[in-house]
Amino acid sequence: MLSKNQAKNLRALHRKKTRREQGLFLVEGEKVVAELLAASDWQVQSLYATAAFINAYKGLIKQSGVTLVECSAEELTSVSTLVSNSAALAVVAMPRQAPDLHLDSNTWILALDGINDPGNLGSVLRIADWYGIQQVMCSPTTAEVYNPKVITASKGSFLRVAVVYQPLPDFFATLSANTAVLGAYLDGESIHNLQPNPQGGVILLGSEAQGISAELAALVTRKITIPAFGAAESLNVGIAAAVICDNLKRLSSL
Amino acid sequence: MLSKNQAKNLRALHRKKTRREQGLFLVEGEKVVAELLAASDWQVQSLYATAAFINAYKGLIKQSGVTLVECSAEELTSVSTLVSNSAALAVVAMPRQAPDLHLDSNTWILALDGINDPGNLGSVLRIADWYGIQQVMCSPTTAEVYNPKVITASKGSFLRVAVVYQPLPDFFATLSANTAVLGAYLDGESIHNLQPNPQGGVILLGSEAQGISAELAALVTRKITIPAFGAAESLNVGIAAAVICDNLKRLSSL
Repeated sequence: MLSKNQAKNLRALHRKKTRREQGLFLVEGEKVVAELLAASDWQVQSLYATAAFINAYKGLIKQSGVTLVECSAEELTSVSTLVSNSAALAVVAMPRQAPDLHLDSNTWILALDGINDPGNLGSVLRIADWYGIQQVMCSPTTAEVYNPKVITASKGSFLRVAVVYQPLPDFFATLSANTAVLGAYLDGESIHNLQPNPQGGVILLGSEAQGISAELAALVTRKITIPAFGAAESLNVGIAAAVICDNLKRLSSL
Repeated sequence: MLSKNQAKNLRALHRKKTRREQGLFLVEGEKVVAELLAASDWQVQSLYATAAFINAYKGLIKQSGVTLVECSAEELTSVSTLVSNSAALAVVAMPRQAPDLHLDSNTWILALDGINDPGNLGSVLRIADWYGIQQVMCSPTTAEVYNPKVITASKGSFLRVAVVYQPLPDFFATLSANTAVLGAYLDGESIHNLQPNPQGGVILLGSEAQGISAELAALVTRKITIPAFGAAESLNVGIAAAVICDNLKRLSSL
């Protein structure tokens, strides 16, 4: 059973301010909580789950050593950001240190310049994970990765993709001079056929509304474009990320 | 100014039942309403717009001959499905006849089997439009194209892409025997390199939860797959549609 105080604390974690103050965030829903419990490198502070979830995942729960509170689906839903939650909700500690990003000649990093929609950020993490891109560098204007909408949209990929926030000019200043920085534009080289064919580097995506900022544009070494065959003016940033990653992974494995 | 009765009628169009009964649907927001007014083949029944919108688009409005009601941004927002609308809202007649789909050897049709999330359907229309695929065949279990969320997510692409609803087995029965039917699976041929290279046909996408139904699976002539390089289990159906269309358009222009 969920106490009033527990419910209040869980609801408080819907807010960014509380998440930051407490260094905690929520992970919700059966599949992603099960994945979280199986991942060894996250510190789960407490788990609120229905009897059915506890029964289905008792091995994982025991192994994780987490504090467990059994509650009903109605109680879970009342503190969840999901429309309904009949499985589980975990309170997780944010990592104390930002992961170190590293880039060698056949690694890709995604850099996001002001992707402020949480659903889009979550979608980009899922795509990065599909394409084996394990590092995402975000401008401070990008949505917060611990927003429950990001976590949910990422479908568990936040567990595998390292996300770091840094002013992008500072990040670019750390790169070696010969690093390829591919910026997504509407008037660059077609990603269907890049010559020469890049093996790794940074893929820079701007916001849907503003594109890549002028300051960063100066750091782009190569402008790339998704070829259009019809009349739509643009693609959603998650869609663009997927098509670009797909082509770069295809080209670099040729 | 918006009368109580007008407001009531506009809000009623948020519901599928009313849209069906009246054969009308809503188009909302500055950019898409402006595109709608410029498109000649849609019958706009009435236009509710702010003075700023009317001033900016007076040529288009005059040319369209539409009944115009000036109202404030607050009034518009109160009847809109958008979080805020400070520009325009149009009431549009559904086409009386479903468009005829036609398929020749170098045309692609997207067929959607139970894509019930309106945002995903809108996203698929925008992608189809980007890739010059002008025909989308939907199973009756797919989201309604006139749902305001579909219209908004399509970003105006609903104006250019013909959408038809038909039980998919009936649609497949109309195809000539040598039509390629490419079904998206997790264990098919890699779309990075299809041999031989299809020039046109049907691209069949199943729902995220269930995939392609068994009945339709028997009609697939070729199973295709987006290659994975990482650990994510799946991609969102809109993302999958984009990556598949991108590869097929690339391959068919080689």
